[in-house]
Amino acid sequence: MINKLIENIKKTNAPIVVGLDPMLSYVPQQVQQKAFAEYGETLEGAAEAIWQFNKAIVDATYDLIPAVKPQVAMYEQFGVPGMVAYEKTVAYCQEKGLVVIGDIKRGDIGSTSEAYAIGHLGQVQVGSKKYAGFHEDFATVNPYLGSDGVKPFLKVCKEEKKGIFILVKTSNPSSGEFQDQLIDGRPLYELVGEKVAEWGSEVMGDSYSYVGAVVGATYPEMGKVLRKVMPKSFILVPGYGAQGGQGKDLVHFFNEDGLGAIVNSSRGIIAAYKQEKYAQFGAENYADASRQAVLDMVADIDGALKAR
Amino acid sequence: MINKLIENIKKTNAPIVVGLDPMLSYVPQQVQQKAFAEYGETLEGAAEAIWQFNKAIVDATYDLIPAVKPQVAMYEQFGVPGMVAYEKTVAYCQEKGLVVIGDIKRGDIGSTSEAYAIGHLGQVQVGSKKYAGFHEDFATVNPYLGSDGVKPFLKVCKEEKKGIFILVKTSNPSSGEFQDQLIDGRPLYELVGEKVAEWGSEVMGDSYSYVGAVVGATYPEMGKVLRKVMPKSFILVPGYGAQGGQGKDLVHFFNEDGLGAIVNSSRGIIAAYKQEKYAQFGAENYADASRQAVLDMVADIDGALKAR
Repeated sequence: MINKLIENIKKTNAPIVVGLDPMLSYVPQQVQQKAFAEYGETLEGAAEAIWQFNKAIVDATYDLIPAVKPQVAMYEQFGVPGMVAYEKTVAYCQEKGLVVIGDIKRGDIGSTSEAYAIGHLGQVQVGSKKYAGFHEDFATVNPYLGSDGVKPFLKVCKEEKKGIFILVKTSNPSSGEFQDQLIDGRPLYELVGEKVAEWGSEVMGDSYSYVGAVVGATYPEMGKVLRKVMPKSFILVPGYGAQGGQGKDLVHFFNEDGLGAIVNSSRGIIAAYKQEKYAQFGAENYADASRQAVLDMVADIDGALKAR
Repeated sequence: MINKLIENIKKTNAPIVVGLDPMLSYVPQQVQQKAFAEYGETLEGAAEAIWQFNKAIVDATYDLIPAVKPQVAMYEQFGVPGMVAYEKTVAYCQEKGLVVIGDIKRGDIGSTSEAYAIGHLGQVQVGSKKYAGFHEDFATVNPYLGSDGVKPFLKVCKEEKKGIFILVKTSNPSSGEFQDQLIDGRPLYELVGEKVAEWGSEVMGDSYSYVGAVVGATYPEMGKVLRKVMPKSFILVPGYGAQGGQGKDLVHFFNEDGLGAIVNSSRGIIAAYKQEKYAQFGAENYADASRQAVLDMVADIDGALKAR
């Protein structure tokens, strides 16, 4: 799947990923009202609204982008119907040829971690049959529990040729509380980055590992260091746009080959129509606003990479 | 909800929690076959099997225990039907008067963490209505992202009078890889424990905080230290039984008042019928074996606490 991700990036010339994190407040009134008319103001109605919202954005952008990253929390908040919309979104994006990174940030130990890996990346045995529950292509994983939490994911990745992105240095203001703490003079995130490189060496694609890392766009200097610590790992970079990161901050997340990073934008793309910059599209044409926001983001990153 | 947990513990005199982590391999053949006869060898069939398995164990033990801890990964592996079984299990245990600790180990930032908190402990707004998606009473939370990840949970806990248990020192062999790293001479888990005490001071029940901690039974000496670092936090203690912890290892997790800890056993209770010790019950009477295993666990811990 890392090979397919790279292929998709080369095809689109867009090292970006659209975060499908649909807050109900992002969904234009006409979409909400149509869903509520059919299902009522219920969890099913909310799930229908975010699914229709996603579908229109995917239809308007899929030819420009290599991948999407649905944030499962935004679906999980609507209970079981939300999870139905999540699975439907994953399946639809895959039909459109997109790589799907499930932003699930799971992490546990042993058989429990294996159950997460199976549910999201693998197949579960039921009697004589096998089923893929949520069937994402990649998943994000929390490293706090150490190798016992990560190795079951590696096993499933190897079997299924799928991948993971491990949280190393997250984009939020308080990420330093634990991640920046110095251990023998070096921050914890570097130690985690070294483990990512080590775990990743066990599961290599053609040029990059199945094991990537999450490093926030909001910490470009740390990204520069981590790029060197994990040369064969793709870095998934959140924090672009709404969280403050810009194209010029991102150049050091990439390798010399122009690969090695994929930059996420969620709100900046899917709720573009709410920004002054894209206001002329109007809430009716929210998906067109998203398309324009994708084009602008790709140009920003491309410009920054060419100028380096 | 921390008050209700304490009340339930006093009523049952059992500071334990039964981990409802149903691997399909724990579910006796007759239960699987009945479910598959009705739904086929499908995800729905598997979900029905684990639900019926859970229900029988809850029916056989609910009068002896204060709380259960379903591990969501074991349900999530069966996709959407698994999540239906999870929600059904949560609701059924609550009907029986049990406190439900959702072992979800979620953790993200800002609005995403809030979405998890809302989906599992709170209520989501849909138009003019509100719905509680998975409605657990407590949830486990991963601290790697720092305060930005935890505070949205605190907000929802305050509103709903619910609680969380934050991973501090997990029970697995490799938990030390990151958690034991020394920062200014003190391990990371202590620093996390201090933050738990700080976060917990904002949301106090009558005698204990809404914010508890997870500390593995397999690390009794660390439990002793952490007990002092977080005097007002309940400690959820996994690792008893199958993972090697015993009653005598657990005494230092408790405060002088005999409270402050709740010990989890999963496999040791729900798959008791597979142990030689309980083999006389047979697979037919698996729920009775679970009941006996609960009685034995309570006696072991009670004995250890009396002997201290």
